[in-house]
Amino acid sequence: MTSINEMNRLTELTEEAIEYIAVGAAVLGTGGGGDPHIGKLMAIGAIKKYGPVKVISPDELGDDDLVVPFSMIGAPTVMNEKIPAQEQMSKPLDLIEKELGRKISAIMPIEVGGGNSLIPVIAAAERGIPVLDADAMGRAFPESQMVTFYLDGMDPSPITMADERGNAVLMHAIDGIWEERMARAVTIQMGGSASICDYPATGAQMKKSVIPHTLSLAYEIGKTLFESKEQKQHPIEALLKQLNGYALFHGKASDIRRRMEGGFTRGEATFEGTGEHKGRTMKLFFQNEFLLAKEGERSLAVTPDLISLLDQDTGMPITTENLKYGARITAVGFPCDPKWRTPKGLDTVGPKYFGYDVPFVPIEELAAKKGANQA
Amino acid sequence: MTSINEMNRLTELTEEAIEYIAVGAAVLGTGGGGDPHIGKLMAIGAIKKYGPVKVISPDELGDDDLVVPFSMIGAPTVMNEKIPAQEQMSKPLDLIEKELGRKISAIMPIEVGGGNSLIPVIAAAERGIPVLDADAMGRAFPESQMVTFYLDGMDPSPITMADERGNAVLMHAIDGIWEERMARAVTIQMGGSASICDYPATGAQMKKSVIPHTLSLAYEIGKTLFESKEQKQHPIEALLKQLNGYALFHGKASDIRRRMEGGFTRGEATFEGTGEHKGRTMKLFFQNEFLLAKEGERSLAVTPDLISLLDQDTGMPITTENLKYGARITAVGFPCDPKWRTPKGLDTVGPKYFGYDVPFVPIEELAAKKGANQA
Repeated sequence: MTSINEMNRLTELTEEAIEYIAVGAAVLGTGGGGDPHIGKLMAIGAIKKYGPVKVISPDELGDDDLVVPFSMIGAPTVMNEKIPAQEQMSKPLDLIEKELGRKISAIMPIEVGGGNSLIPVIAAAERGIPVLDADAMGRAFPESQMVTFYLDGMDPSPITMADERGNAVLMHAIDGIWEERMARAVTIQMGGSASICDYPATGAQMKKSVIPHTLSLAYEIGKTLFESKEQKQHPIEALLKQLNGYALFHGKASDIRRRMEGGFTRGEATFEGTGEHKGRTMKLFFQNEFLLAKEGERSLAVTPDLISLLDQDTGMPITTENLKYGARITAVGFPCDPKWRTPKGLDTVGPKYFGYDVPFVPIEELAAKKGANQA
Repeated sequence: MTSINEMNRLTELTEEAIEYIAVGAAVLGTGGGGDPHIGKLMAIGAIKKYGPVKVISPDELGDDDLVVPFSMIGAPTVMNEKIPAQEQMSKPLDLIEKELGRKISAIMPIEVGGGNSLIPVIAAAERGIPVLDADAMGRAFPESQMVTFYLDGMDPSPITMADERGNAVLMHAIDGIWEERMARAVTIQMGGSASICDYPATGAQMKKSVIPHTLSLAYEIGKTLFESKEQKQHPIEALLKQLNGYALFHGKASDIRRRMEGGFTRGEATFEGTGEHKGRTMKLFFQNEFLLAKEGERSLAVTPDLISLLDQDTGMPITTENLKYGARITAVGFPCDPKWRTPKGLDTVGPKYFGYDVPFVPIEELAAKKGANQA
């Protein structure tokens, strides 16, 4: 595995970089994080119009810089059908600047998942400011308090939101849980998706609390998937090596149940084994993101560890929204950032929180028990 | 009937005036508008602490004055149990002043119903500014777009809200319908009730759009109910004379069904006739407010005309929340402000909007058909 520390760091977002990030972020997005295709098209459009966007590392931030996370909130089912309006890409940032009485120094993704890795690029291009190479999840999660900022007790306010019609909201929530309640309710009223800024903070705070270099990581993952064939390596094998990952299951989607519920896309998918897993069955449970993989009563991977679905042949990631009946997939799993494996981390994003009656067991241990096929 | 023009105008809110207004506003509140008792206690407390509050007539407003309606939003069922916090009584006004960059000249009730007539008094006392003798309904209605401001196409934004925990929200809604959607969703998350400012506007605009002198009217109604016995008149007879009203039904509450639904208290109540109505049955339908009175298939009174329940003996008004099994009541009806009988008025607050399959017929016509007992 290439450690993140040894990785090449992105310094500029070009069209090519965005193509790679869109794919890498869909892997880290574990099925959610918004549609990477729409985010990609919008980000490329913005770069064509305004020029490449500078990427800075957290250690380049000034302590007093104002750094603002920017993303889309809502159900992926809706986001696929409702392309964000131009005004939505600037209004929440304008409201933050007005409320705090100062200019934003850098914009960052709240999650390095799906389209939400690229939403900040659109706004940063328009404003001519850099994007921070970091996020607050190291993956995607469905709820707004599921960020390292919440684990660190940061104030999420002011929180700003906008829809595509011209409605906008600024909230002062007493904590991340209250933000989630109020922002989710507003999102549902706004038609199921909205743009949002939360946890605006200083460079000094962000240096402590972000998960660094995850845009670079997404870029490297995309590069691996695109370039592995040239190196005569199967893309999935190359990816598992890169991320310390595990192949969980090879199979074919035989049943997919999605429902819109409480502003989320919730459901489960069933896969009949293929190849070495023929005759076996895997179930994947999701709330926007894939959160639990089980074979019968046995857990294969459990949130907050990452679960992604890849096309068996190309290794390209498949989102919860785009998963189709008959799709031939390999389910893969990766260890999450260590911050999520702490007691507060597991209270916030562990299986109990999502209502799954299984304990969290690190994917390394699950794989060791099973004698899994680690690349 | 004393016409509003001939009425004595309030110039100052003393403890006695507040006692009268609380009762009169509960009549005009048609069962809703929040608990008059809690509003009364809070307003009296504020006047004891800060001194009497000045009342001004719309014609005393300067054209550039900033006038801000202030009220509680939510289900009365919750408001009876959740007394507003001190901070809630100032935060929405502070947010308006910050957003608009200027001081508020006067605070007004959005509805002259129940507790919401008195909520502005609390805030005005603390700030040492006057309360405007006017409202935007001439009664109470359950939804936030049900205001003369909406009929006049006014911008409801900025809208500000606060709960008792410290959460606060500022919204820019494209119109009153979007305000209602978003503010109602936030209210539900805030636990079912919240304080809110909406439709802040200039004195010039307010002079055109308010329903004037409704605080004075509430005061006069309260005075009538309290003082009629001295004048050897039945309080209900005195009230009907004062308001051009109609006695709809004398009866006893035999069934009350309330449910919390979408942030409202909805339901219906059945009354078995007493006295001259013995052997007959009336049904009252409500959403926070009483909206429709029927005897069998015949409408007795239909929203937006006012329907109030009064204690048969004392004439004291009974809210939807405080109505109890066995209560002996007289249901009375009054014509609404003419603004509500226009096509846009009826689209906004007519029976169809609330899902009642009856036409709007003015209470004068219904009473004439029935040969009702007009005082």
